[in-house]
Amino acid sequence: MKFVTAMIHNEQFIGLVHGEKIIDLRKAEKDIFELSSFPNTLLQCVAKGDKFVQNVKQIVDKINVKEGSESYLYPLADVKILSPIPNPPKNILCVGKNYRNHVIEMGSEEDIPKHVLLFTKAPTSVIGHKDEIDPHLHITKELDYEGELAVVIGKKGKQINEEDAMDYVFGYTIVNDVTARNLQKQHTQYFLGKSLDTSCPIGPYLVHKSAIENPYDLKIKTSVNNEIRQDGNTKDMIFSIEHIISTISQGTTLEPGDIIATGTPAGVGNGFHPPKYLQQGDIIEIEVEGIGVLENRIKSSS
Amino acid sequence: MKFVTAMIHNEQFIGLVHGEKIIDLRKAEKDIFELSSFPNTLLQCVAKGDKFVQNVKQIVDKINVKEGSESYLYPLADVKILSPIPNPPKNILCVGKNYRNHVIEMGSEEDIPKHVLLFTKAPTSVIGHKDEIDPHLHITKELDYEGELAVVIGKKGKQINEEDAMDYVFGYTIVNDVTARNLQKQHTQYFLGKSLDTSCPIGPYLVHKSAIENPYDLKIKTSVNNEIRQDGNTKDMIFSIEHIISTISQGTTLEPGDIIATGTPAGVGNGFHPPKYLQQGDIIEIEVEGIGVLENRIKSSS
Repeated sequence: MKFVTAMIHNEQFIGLVHGEKIIDLRKAEKDIFELSSFPNTLLQCVAKGDKFVQNVKQIVDKINVKEGSESYLYPLADVKILSPIPNPPKNILCVGKNYRNHVIEMGSEEDIPKHVLLFTKAPTSVIGHKDEIDPHLHITKELDYEGELAVVIGKKGKQINEEDAMDYVFGYTIVNDVTARNLQKQHTQYFLGKSLDTSCPIGPYLVHKSAIENPYDLKIKTSVNNEIRQDGNTKDMIFSIEHIISTISQGTTLEPGDIIATGTPAGVGNGFHPPKYLQQGDIIEIEVEGIGVLENRIKSSS
Repeated sequence: MKFVTAMIHNEQFIGLVHGEKIIDLRKAEKDIFELSSFPNTLLQCVAKGDKFVQNVKQIVDKINVKEGSESYLYPLADVKILSPIPNPPKNILCVGKNYRNHVIEMGSEEDIPKHVLLFTKAPTSVIGHKDEIDPHLHITKELDYEGELAVVIGKKGKQINEEDAMDYVFGYTIVNDVTARNLQKQHTQYFLGKSLDTSCPIGPYLVHKSAIENPYDLKIKTSVNNEIRQDGNTKDMIFSIEHIISTISQGTTLEPGDIIATGTPAGVGNGFHPPKYLQQGDIIEIEVEGIGVLENRIKSSS
């Protein structure tokens, strides 16, 4: 189940990818079951948890794709995909230094953390698939990409044990943790260098966890203009998703819709000699196996 | 003008402190002008900017306090004051190491930052005046206070010049940037040690900027059980409010209701030898001149 928040005819809707089509879930529920149980936003749907997922399954079961002419089925190409949660009600949580080889390319073996390193990105930095990234040339010449698997929390929780942690995950998406390296270094705490407007592309899909058999065997590939830069695998995470969730929630309540980016593997622009920072016009594609491809272009000045 | 978000008879309202009373602003507007121009939350009122402040002034002009029996006037003692913005739509922004003597007590002169240091606290950590702070004994024995002047942004802006920065400030409040020192150190990035539930008391008032002639001459005093611990003055800030706003907004859009805590002066518990960390039952009072007194107690286990 790949959920989207998307636009068609200037209206936002919540959808489900269905082959080459997208199901408008609220419309489909109304047409098929004469029901309106779904809230307006994917964030609110996520908060409904299993009940929402079950209702979606019933819709999918009823849909006969072959007919394909129903008013609630849109061709994928006709919709504009937004970030799954376009206006997150809090900052995006990010894990830093969670892949050994990335830690080493950014510094040395000594920097490998003993405890989860957590920082946030401002909600104002969030954009969707195919939205353009502002290069912010007036403040950085060192804009960098970081392809990451992100988890979306589905259930409120505190003091969650590692064994129970996956019960609190709704699903997965992709985050490009775009970073202005000069600001990250200058300001020592990461927030500012990670929070420039448009520096948090998320999407394209929010994939329900049932579709991902093993989150620790997913290839993460980032390419810039078709040149592969990051070629990692989630099996190399230092801290597991369960450990991250458990650590945060010991004192901090997690809530439905919380987005946690789980860190980036080796191959960021800053790791090359000389560094390969992002330039105007560059196209960044991040593929996480089973989740999708998140593509964004660095805006060119006109 | 001291605004509050408060509760009376289990209903939340937006109020204005008026001597020993609190004006229920929406009720007063309706009674006096037969109008309902104010939104439901102080956050939304702040976003209305000068228009909101002008309307409040008209109400105050009309109110004859001496009568004192109007249904929209409540005795201060009868209301429960909440955080001015109880559910902030993004993390609280905080400036670290912004007072020279505090930087030295936490480390050394060498740690005095050349650039603004910014981190965030989770919205789930926000509580109000007189709410209890959870000691989180299972994860910290090093809970500490940090009394701070905070600014609340009143207007959306980006690339704000220092000269214009004050136009973007709605007003001031007090933040206790409660910190679990062990977690702050362990996790290196500050977020987690600063984001435990109940670790961000804010309030009691949101004071309109017109009431504060000079934000750089305000005493900040923090006492624990009536022992004065912090006795600073905002004149000692390393980075001015204008500089902070300008720095953030170069690449990150600021929005109405954004809360920026401007750093803490010397005298935190961690600065004493031996350290004076917070204990169950401790009462912390933070007074910022002209703004008010924010009081919270560390919860005792029953």
